[in-house]
Amino acid sequence: MVNMATEDSVTFDPDLPDVYGDAQPKQLLRTIIEEHEQLQTLANRHVISSGQFSRDVMLQLFRLAAKFECNPERFNSPLAGKLLISAFYEPSTRTRLSFESAWHRLGGDIMSIADRSTTGIAKGESYADVAEMFNNYGDCVVLRDSDPEAVYQMARSLRIPIINAGNGIMEHPTQALADVYTILKWRPELLTDDAKPIRIGVVGVPKRMRTVRSLLTLLSQFSDIIEELVVISDRPAKTAFADGQLEALEEAGLNVRLSNELDGELPELDVVYINAIAWVKNAREVMGNAFRLDDQSPLKEGAIILHPLARGPELDVSLDTTPHNWYFAQARGAVFVRKALLTCMTQRTERVMDVV
Amino acid sequence: MVNMATEDSVTFDPDLPDVYGDAQPKQLLRTIIEEHEQLQTLANRHVISSGQFSRDVMLQLFRLAAKFECNPERFNSPLAGKLLISAFYEPSTRTRLSFESAWHRLGGDIMSIADRSTTGIAKGESYADVAEMFNNYGDCVVLRDSDPEAVYQMARSLRIPIINAGNGIMEHPTQALADVYTILKWRPELLTDDAKPIRIGVVGVPKRMRTVRSLLTLLSQFSDIIEELVVISDRPAKTAFADGQLEALEEAGLNVRLSNELDGELPELDVVYINAIAWVKNAREVMGNAFRLDDQSPLKEGAIILHPLARGPELDVSLDTTPHNWYFAQARGAVFVRKALLTCMTQRTERVMDVV
Amino acid sequence: MVNMATEDSVTFDPDLPDVYGDAQPKQLLRTIIEEHEQLQTLANRHVISSGQFSRDVMLQLFRLAAKFECNPERFNSPLAGKLLISAFYEPSTRTRLSFESAWHRLGGDIMSIADRSTTGIAKGESYADVAEMFNNYGDCVVLRDSDPEAVYQMARSLRIPIINAGNGIMEHPTQALADVYTILKWRPELLTDDAKPIRIGVVGVPKRMRTVRSLLTLLSQFSDIIEELVVISDRPAKTAFADGQLEALEEAGLNVRLSNELDGELPELDVVYINAIAWVKNAREVMGNAFRLDDQSPLKEGAIILHPLARGPELDVSLDTTPHNWYFAQARGAVFVRKALLTCMTQRTERVMDVV
Repeated sequence: MVNMATEDSVTFDPDLPDVYGDAQPKQLLRTIIEEHEQLQTLANRHVISSGQFSRDVMLQLFRLAAKFECNPERFNSPLAGKLLISAFYEPSTRTRLSFESAWHRLGGDIMSIADRSTTGIAKGESYADVAEMFNNYGDCVVLRDSDPEAVYQMARSLRIPIINAGNGIMEHPTQALADVYTILKWRPELLTDDAKPIRIGVVGVPKRMRTVRSLLTLLSQFSDIIEELVVISDRPAKTAFADGQLEALEEAGLNVRLSNELDGELPELDVVYINAIAWVKNAREVMGNAFRLDDQSPLKEGAIILHPLARGPELDVSLDTTPHNWYFAQARGAVFVRKALLTCMTQRTERVMDVV
Repeated sequence: MVNMATEDSVTFDPDLPDVYGDAQPKQLLRTIIEEHEQLQTLANRHVISSGQFSRDVMLQLFRLAAKFECNPERFNSPLAGKLLISAFYEPSTRTRLSFESAWHRLGGDIMSIADRSTTGIAKGESYADVAEMFNNYGDCVVLRDSDPEAVYQMARSLRIPIINAGNGIMEHPTQALADVYTILKWRPELLTDDAKPIRIGVVGVPKRMRTVRSLLTLLSQFSDIIEELVVISDRPAKTAFADGQLEALEEAGLNVRLSNELDGELPELDVVYINAIAWVKNAREVMGNAFRLDDQSPLKEGAIILHPLARGPELDVSLDTTPHNWYFAQARGAVFVRKALLTCMTQRTERVMDVV
Repeated sequence: MVNMATEDSVTFDPDLPDVYGDAQPKQLLRTIIEEHEQLQTLANRHVISSGQFSRDVMLQLFRLAAKFECNPERFNSPLAGKLLISAFYEPSTRTRLSFESAWHRLGGDIMSIADRSTTGIAKGESYADVAEMFNNYGDCVVLRDSDPEAVYQMARSLRIPIINAGNGIMEHPTQALADVYTILKWRPELLTDDAKPIRIGVVGVPKRMRTVRSLLTLLSQFSDIIEELVVISDRPAKTAFADGQLEALEEAGLNVRLSNELDGELPELDVVYINAIAWVKNAREVMGNAFRLDDQSPLKEGAIILHPLARGPELDVSLDTTPHNWYFAQARGAVFVRKALLTCMTQRTERVMDVV
């Protein structure tokens, strides 16, 4: 066989829009009123945990993200002269490139560590010493490490901001920001006074999954627009949640219920968040096969599916071409959310504000 | 012994020209008349196979490459603001840096994946999902993968252009473009009406070697200037060529002959292309020792040797200082050919044209 | 436990100065008179060995480094359009990022090789062929390789400058430049006529440690300001020094004494350089535990400690918060020294001079 690229295989349509175009971010942009000073609170601060973000700060971040998404070519140099250290001691192409794309799109330069094996950390150097080195070399650090303590240990020695891009099973705050951004982009009217609250299902184990943990913490600040949040897993509350985790969510006003049955919940859920992968140190712990979505699942009409990706068998490709697929929009939006956050953390917000 | 760098070991001459200077690209530039619209056909298209390039498009690409080579410092920002994803799932420093140098020289930014081991692909993520991710992150993808299907699978999901930088044993179209560019740079008069056709020898197995396969496909569009193309290997036609491969070349007008003897052919060859390495998945399959070139080989006066590099024992260093060495010029030219192609694929040709 | 980032853990003070602020580089800058022509001697030359640097050239490099350190935001684009090949065939995050930070801060672009395993070198390609490739791709090469000959073999084929960033156990000249820069930054008055000479202790094996070897060579040009240089190790002179090494230092005027006792020397030393790691091919050879510094060590008041980092148990963290800690300032200064050197090697000095 002589392999030949057919005309069809080599052409593409660059204008194929994102799943739901830019009408959505435009509406979100109109819905939130700009409050510059909220974003200034992000200056000179690390981003380690979802618990750091107030609702007001989140909304301003989402407004800025929506502004970037409505007009990706604009604001292409607010980070000119700024240097990012992209340190993925736990390798992750997807998250690394999402951050690096965001930084490059803002006009900054990058130094990458894509692999732990060749670093001083692997030879026993302390995180504090590595942080001292980073102080001399860059203007911001993005860190992923399978050790939950690494980001805390670096933060203590840093004089430049660090972002936690996943610390073991504990947190992944920027992923959670992207998740909430997607929900609000999908339905900006949730932020208006007469909004009808939604029901959200989260498939996963809050105790063991960093993306789920961070997401629940952020959602607890939006309890007024969430009628109920159903955590769906094969575990009882005792092992599904960490000590005090459920109580903290409920105290924040979130109406949380635990379920061990996915298909029974689906017909009543507006948003289904699924992520079958839990990180246990460097290994993966997968939930039972009971929790799978495909185009035969009894999804509510108009419901959207979110997934932090990469996916496993829990999310069937048959859903990709359905209107339930908002996970691609979610990945796309993550770059704009990160652009917004990075702009604030490096104190360049005044270069992208409408009014200063 | 106290090791000391001698004065001689630390100085160099930056002006030592390329093997044959820039008189050659200048002549090529003058020989080809600019036809802007040919290059515009490369917009919104992937580059997967050599079979995609018409003679006219190739000549315009070579003209633009020659323009870049004549004046490397000019046109240093046509890709400003553009972001390349350099994805070498099959590692290759040489090809990766050639593409990355071309992109940087045009003023663009880059995100690199230098190693498959740390990627989602290695963990079982689909090429389609990776392509969806790339859509959100960059403006162009360069892919090398040992799996011949990877580039096709990505192309189907991409809304940005992808370039095949080697897909298993199948194709390596940009290497072949650089090869033909070198031949025409060496002898631009081949493109004039009264040109004397040349005889080309290609040492290798077209069925198993991606560079040979791609080169022959491109050469089949220049049958008028090729008196004879001799394929030299230790195999009969049946195993040297893939099914239909020889027939397709002959149908295109190329006068192809198979030979199993190198030294006997050399005295009559104007161009000798050698490349002893065939990729069989991740292993290497090397041809017999019979096919070696050194400065004692009975090369025709004025003949040139091409090699895609890196070389093995088949190409002796004793040839490096002879006028037969055009393989270094070939590697140099490859950067300019890639600059030309990348400029067209990202729709920035109007920034480098003489007349628009 | 629900992990929460406390307010304290996410804030930092960006204005916390370097250990001794910028008064020191400012004083050094005032002490050295600009002599542009000295820096021009670095153009069109490789940097392979410490033996290449005259005292006058060093002082001008340090002056330029101090100028960069006094005003890090100024001079941010002298290398615009220049492309660095950062080739760490022996991996080193610390040194790689130090060079890459320096290059980026000057406005240049970079292509990185962070790992030998995926390169042609690992497959048997010659250094000469790799150098030919680099000629086509970049404007400058930084090389670290465990093979001491690699940098020499590349240099012979290069038409662009190469910097030795560590070649096996032989040399690491830019580290040594950073070391001497730190000493002069600490006490610029050493360069004035009425300076009181200092006593320097170097813990290590000059024969086996590249940083020590390079440092001693540089210090031999400052014998007038060094009352005595004490080499402290557990070996006799015969195995501590390479053949002829001690003699060369003494011939240059340096007053060298060997000692096998650290604590006994400390009370009389103004500068203590420690580095317990010797590179023996890819393995590490560590000196005895006798040579350790902590905050109980009998250090002279006002004495400073230098260490090229990363550290092992030989340098206790209890010293980090003492005024003896100049090793962090040393790491910080290394970026500015490299900025100065890179600017000169790429012939862009005229863009950063006060007077031209």
